[in-house]
Amino acid sequence: MPEAQTRTSTGDKASLATRFAETRALTEALCAPLSEADATIQSMEDASPAKWHLAHVTWFWETFLLRDHAPGYTLYDEAWPFLFNSYYEAEGDRILRKRRGMLSRPTLAQVLDWRACVDDAMAPLLDRPELADLIALGIAHEQQHIELLLTDIKHAFSKNPLGPAIWSEPPEASSQQQEGWYDHPGGIAMVGHQGSTFAFDNEGPAHRVLLEPFALSRRLVTNGEWADFIADGGYSTASLWLSDGWAWVNRMGISAPLYWRDGEQFTHAGWQARDPDAPVTHISYYEADAFASWAGARLPSEFEWEVIGQGHDAAAGNQLDTAGPVAPRGTGELFGDVWQFTRSGYLPYPRFQPAAGAVGEYNGKFMSGQWVLKGASCATMRGHSRASYRNFFYPQQRWQFTGLRLAKDS
Amino acid sequence: MPEAQTRTSTGDKASLATRFAETRALTEALCAPLSEADATIQSMEDASPAKWHLAHVTWFWETFLLRDHAPGYTLYDEAWPFLFNSYYEAEGDRILRKRRGMLSRPTLAQVLDWRACVDDAMAPLLDRPELADLIALGIAHEQQHIELLLTDIKHAFSKNPLGPAIWSEPPEASSQQQEGWYDHPGGIAMVGHQGSTFAFDNEGPAHRVLLEPFALSRRLVTNGEWADFIADGGYSTASLWLSDGWAWVNRMGISAPLYWRDGEQFTHAGWQARDPDAPVTHISYYEADAFASWAGARLPSEFEWEVIGQGHDAAAGNQLDTAGPVAPRGTGELFGDVWQFTRSGYLPYPRFQPAAGAVGEYNGKFMSGQWVLKGASCATMRGHSRASYRNFFYPQQRWQFTGLRLAKDS
Amino acid sequence: MPEAQTRTSTGDKASLATRFAETRALTEALCAPLSEADATIQSMEDASPAKWHLAHVTWFWETFLLRDHAPGYTLYDEAWPFLFNSYYEAEGDRILRKRRGMLSRPTLAQVLDWRACVDDAMAPLLDRPELADLIALGIAHEQQHIELLLTDIKHAFSKNPLGPAIWSEPPEASSQQQEGWYDHPGGIAMVGHQGSTFAFDNEGPAHRVLLEPFALSRRLVTNGEWADFIADGGYSTASLWLSDGWAWVNRMGISAPLYWRDGEQFTHAGWQARDPDAPVTHISYYEADAFASWAGARLPSEFEWEVIGQGHDAAAGNQLDTAGPVAPRGTGELFGDVWQFTRSGYLPYPRFQPAAGAVGEYNGKFMSGQWVLKGASCATMRGHSRASYRNFFYPQQRWQFTGLRLAKDS
Amino acid sequence: MPEAQTRTSTGDKASLATRFAETRALTEALCAPLSEADATIQSMEDASPAKWHLAHVTWFWETFLLRDHAPGYTLYDEAWPFLFNSYYEAEGDRILRKRRGMLSRPTLAQVLDWRACVDDAMAPLLDRPELADLIALGIAHEQQHIELLLTDIKHAFSKNPLGPAIWSEPPEASSQQQEGWYDHPGGIAMVGHQGSTFAFDNEGPAHRVLLEPFALSRRLVTNGEWADFIADGGYSTASLWLSDGWAWVNRMGISAPLYWRDGEQFTHAGWQARDPDAPVTHISYYEADAFASWAGARLPSEFEWEVIGQGHDAAAGNQLDTAGPVAPRGTGELFGDVWQFTRSGYLPYPRFQPAAGAVGEYNGKFMSGQWVLKGASCATMRGHSRASYRNFFYPQQRWQFTGLRLAKDS
Ligand SMILES: [Fe+3]
Ligand SMILES: [Fe+3]
Ligand SMILES: [Fe+3]
Ligand SMILES: [Fe+3]
Repeated sequence: MPEAQTRTSTGDKASLATRFAETRALTEALCAPLSEADATIQSMEDASPAKWHLAHVTWFWETFLLRDHAPGYTLYDEAWPFLFNSYYEAEGDRILRKRRGMLSRPTLAQVLDWRACVDDAMAPLLDRPELADLIALGIAHEQQHIELLLTDIKHAFSKNPLGPAIWSEPPEASSQQQEGWYDHPGGIAMVGHQGSTFAFDNEGPAHRVLLEPFALSRRLVTNGEWADFIADGGYSTASLWLSDGWAWVNRMGISAPLYWRDGEQFTHAGWQARDPDAPVTHISYYEADAFASWAGARLPSEFEWEVIGQGHDAAAGNQLDTAGPVAPRGTGELFGDVWQFTRSGYLPYPRFQPAAGAVGEYNGKFMSGQWVLKGASCATMRGHSRASYRNFFYPQQRWQFTGLRLAKDS
Repeated sequence: MPEAQTRTSTGDKASLATRFAETRALTEALCAPLSEADATIQSMEDASPAKWHLAHVTWFWETFLLRDHAPGYTLYDEAWPFLFNSYYEAEGDRILRKRRGMLSRPTLAQVLDWRACVDDAMAPLLDRPELADLIALGIAHEQQHIELLLTDIKHAFSKNPLGPAIWSEPPEASSQQQEGWYDHPGGIAMVGHQGSTFAFDNEGPAHRVLLEPFALSRRLVTNGEWADFIADGGYSTASLWLSDGWAWVNRMGISAPLYWRDGEQFTHAGWQARDPDAPVTHISYYEADAFASWAGARLPSEFEWEVIGQGHDAAAGNQLDTAGPVAPRGTGELFGDVWQFTRSGYLPYPRFQPAAGAVGEYNGKFMSGQWVLKGASCATMRGHSRASYRNFFYPQQRWQFTGLRLAKDS
Repeated sequence: MPEAQTRTSTGDKASLATRFAETRALTEALCAPLSEADATIQSMEDASPAKWHLAHVTWFWETFLLRDHAPGYTLYDEAWPFLFNSYYEAEGDRILRKRRGMLSRPTLAQVLDWRACVDDAMAPLLDRPELADLIALGIAHEQQHIELLLTDIKHAFSKNPLGPAIWSEPPEASSQQQEGWYDHPGGIAMVGHQGSTFAFDNEGPAHRVLLEPFALSRRLVTNGEWADFIADGGYSTASLWLSDGWAWVNRMGISAPLYWRDGEQFTHAGWQARDPDAPVTHISYYEADAFASWAGARLPSEFEWEVIGQGHDAAAGNQLDTAGPVAPRGTGELFGDVWQFTRSGYLPYPRFQPAAGAVGEYNGKFMSGQWVLKGASCATMRGHSRASYRNFFYPQQRWQFTGLRLAKDS
Repeated sequence: MPEAQTRTSTGDKASLATRFAETRALTEALCAPLSEADATIQSMEDASPAKWHLAHVTWFWETFLLRDHAPGYTLYDEAWPFLFNSYYEAEGDRILRKRRGMLSRPTLAQVLDWRACVDDAMAPLLDRPELADLIALGIAHEQQHIELLLTDIKHAFSKNPLGPAIWSEPPEASSQQQEGWYDHPGGIAMVGHQGSTFAFDNEGPAHRVLLEPFALSRRLVTNGEWADFIADGGYSTASLWLSDGWAWVNRMGISAPLYWRDGEQFTHAGWQARDPDAPVTHISYYEADAFASWAGARLPSEFEWEVIGQGHDAAAGNQLDTAGPVAPRGTGELFGDVWQFTRSGYLPYPRFQPAAGAVGEYNGKFMSGQWVLKGASCATMRGHSRASYRNFFYPQQRWQFTGLRLAKDS
């Protein structure tokens, strides 16, 4: 889930300032239970330290808002952009991604002080209309990192043989989802983001697509169904798998979703009993595709999902409201719980053009080798997602709250 | 370019028998200049020895036609399927792909004897109507391996510091291609294979797509233009590249197409002066995409290419007729010279279903991480390709005769 | 510098208790300037986090003294041996070495509490004569980890682009070393540890060796001389290098000692100007050997060094006394400043037998592929080394305070 | 087994010419059963194609004898030194070692023609006394490659799933070796090569060593004993292994000597029943060391072996006389059957100096990380070895005819 770029103007400034404050506060609240060490370690190249997330989103505000638009602003520390630029080639060299875990300095306290200073400096900019797009982008950006922060720290804690908990209370219990299908007759549909609210550049241009008749499941695939897949030899039946997926399963010795062991799964509250009714999560594209084949169904295309999603409340369901442990629990809503794999490669829409300047590096340059996921997860800040939202990951990545909802031709 | 599966019935049996004979003969003619050692070595995991190609296509005939459909047929050698099965999980274990170059035995003479025996055994099957689909598939399969044989042996010879020639005469000289664009108004178009002639399963089902107005160049990008791209710093300008492509360029130290050195390029006739008018070839998807960005254009989608292609003769242009050196030379035809990159991921068409049985492993299981290429190359046996044909490779692969034709929105 | 095993009885218990207390205190004093995060990160597989060192040496006391010899002792935490066992197969499974940097928990405070508890529990054991050998071993073991702690944390800080300092004051300035040679007439000499004081098992059995006449330099090679080696093309002259060393130089792009940049070197006080008079350090065996070839000299054998060392005070020179920044400075003593490479492989002495039980894994199992170093470094706790001491590292390792003293035939 | 350099003058020219002819002829006779493809393939980086051996030894003669000492000699082909120089930096760049298997050209016939031309050109040099040393070196060099040729082609054939035979007749049957020990009282002994006959530079200077009393087994360890080691859990008992060896066993999944499967072993005559009385072979240093620990014994030092070896006939035993399949069979002689591991690192003798010029690269630069083996194997041309001979390999290498003879302290 790299980053993003505004394409249309957003709402009133009051709301912007509120959302800025809420987002900034949530980032810090999520880090509250972390020690200096918890916040510094990096468990794999795909994941970043919590402290790095705290700092990187602040670098984003400092660079694209304060440096570029606040007269007389001077950088908090000139050495820090090298540390906290993620992947913006136009912003210069930076520390290797896999070395982010070496940053025991600056300290957490220094980073929090930086955050406070940037918050102060941002205040006068929040009501400048010409900056509203960029501010909306910055908010969306920090919200994306909130989700990464939750998944990255979970991954880091999972590598500790003690299986420590970030929060002691376990995530909420699951409920049983309703069976059934959303039917769609096919035909010409409009997809992509329209209107004046904020969206990332990769959600446009809006355009028409032709769909065949199809149906989309009303519920997410559960842990219980996944256990059946395993019991039926799913991970050892070559014919269910994509060729690359089969090679991955064998090379990595994969035999279950990430974070499964016996009847447990790893959570923000440590190892917990696994609920068969909860939506399955932490699966790769390869696994999602193999499961769908085993189930005699298929994954939806991103547009099939989107046209169904257009009729649902993107802010409903199990999404992130406050700091605390999160996990899928099956609300029956279309959005929330897990990001849902589609069979669509992450590719540009017709006439897509990345924006000029450094922020143009957000989305377009990642359109190769990744898959589109739709919806929102339990770690997505409520209000962040929408029907046209396109999340994307490589087919072997599993540390996000990924899951699946089946589709079929009709 | 993995393999394929028939979906519709083909023409009359006389034509089938003729095409069988022609294809089988061309495979062997291409190997005539090779020594026993030339035919045995393997220069990388992606490439296979010429002798292995000779044997593998024969295994295909023996397995899916003779074993399954010729009463009383006994295998030529029971140990050989382990050696010459490529990737059919349903057909059992096989030698590791990277170990195909260890097969100094069986000898080339033994493999040629096997070929002769299989040709004899096939004769009575060529006029059995119920086998026509499978035979058409076997012919198409061997034709695909003819192209791989030409590109694989070129790669192997390129690794020899002596730069040896397979054929002493250089490929034909280039002509200048005509400028201009094929314009298309957009709208609903029908794509995918229709009718009763042979096509691979991945070319269907035929279905409608919505296109925006666009234009496709009448000519292929040339070596001369590529030299301009290099001179303009194309390989060192991050903003032109996909993120994965930029990482690849830097990790591998890429600064030119494969087989370029100074003013020369490596060919089936050894190192030869590079003609600026000839279509550029041996480029990766990443390079094609970066070039298009540099040129202010883009790659076509597979469907944009296909709707233009529907109005052209797929058997025209610079394609393979007889054994000898091949290279792009720029005929002005839409087909031939080089396979042309599209911006389309290699994904299933709506309602696509792989066939039952081992031959169902041909195409569907490769629909992950690869890109569609259209047209045909100088190494494609004439008659093999068509407008709906979908070739596919990973974005970093360069040893095929790959190239590009620009597109733009209109 | 793996670990060790006592072979002979040591001095009076008062001294043991004092050395126990001094060693334990120094370990903690060295960690005082470190944040929780500084103490947790791991910069490479060869290095361990400071917190891990604090805990591992405590595990050693708890396992081999308290668990085995203190009646009724119960482990502080039963899950911790899995975390803090280093490489003792006989003590069961353990966390992968490269994963030690994932241990943000237990916290530094918890580890320090463990240390305090173990210190208390150890008190009654310190005057039990039958445990004196094992206690001497535990002290020597913790002293070895003091040195690793200093070199590992230096390595970790060097990976931070900010180049932070652990201590703000720079190391002491260098003095000029005296020229000249220690001459030795050769003949039969006695080497290896003798007497009743503590030594590691790999220092014995004492035995006679035959030496040819030789001379050992009175001084260590300096940064200034190393700069001459570089200026003379030392790193690009194949004939100076061992074959494996030449491959290493080219594969890794080595062109200077570790921690050199322009006129500076990285120290515990951050990047500091490099003193040409200071002994060169952070070099590999390959580099030491190549330099000696360039200088028309050679490295001494371990026995040549030892017979000269028998006449010197092993507790003199630049060695570690108190917590603070350390660096070579050239005192003119034989011991101290840097560990000195010999041309001797780290192999067993005649009739060497590792001890029974888990502590037998200290030294013997590492006798393959490593080289012996003699002396002591600025990071070696004073009193730890002696003439018979055998330090050992792989030929490419550079993060210790390694250096060289030339020898020649006479 | 890299290469070598003469140090003392050899016998009369008649014998030199004879040995030159015999050695050259044997090289070719060993290649007679190989096809062009057999002779071209390379199965791993450590091994070279048979054709490459044929050519490389010829390059050696052409370079160091004909080019440097035959007036007016012109190179057979100026492009070939790049292909057939092995590792002589002073002789310029060369093809990567791992790419030697790409040389389908030049053909085997061309290489054999080169050999004939070089033989002719060498004739007038064979009686020039001032070249006798260099010619003796060239003969010893070609004999070393004869052994590599036999082991490399065996390795290549073993990678073919068909398990083909080079010669159809199996190796000679084994006899039972006599039990007992060679006892030695210890004391000062002279080791290293003395006298005017040929030896490699690494065998000198001759010097005195001090030995403790020891005993060396009169027989080699057998397949039967190795089976007992396996049955007793040898490969899964950590305490028997060097630390690097234990890591190697687990990383590579080692559970038996190379070329073992069920009750068979791979030979030059394909898969054959394994004789429990035959000496075990194709083991690594790690395995030899672990076996000795298991057996309650140890490996001899190179000097212990050598002083016993000084009283034995180096030309006796199972060594190579004519082209044909070879395998250990247990003659009871000290020399022959297998190269015998010692516990000595391959290091320079006191006052060792490599020779000036390119031939100085033979031995000295490999003195790092390898172990000394003594004796001779069934693939060593009879007359090649002697008591002072030092063969050397890395501790994980197994494709040579390596084995072991136990020693013990007395
Ligand atoms: Fe970001
Ligand atoms: Fe095929
Ligand atoms: Fe330790
Ligand atoms: Fe050689």
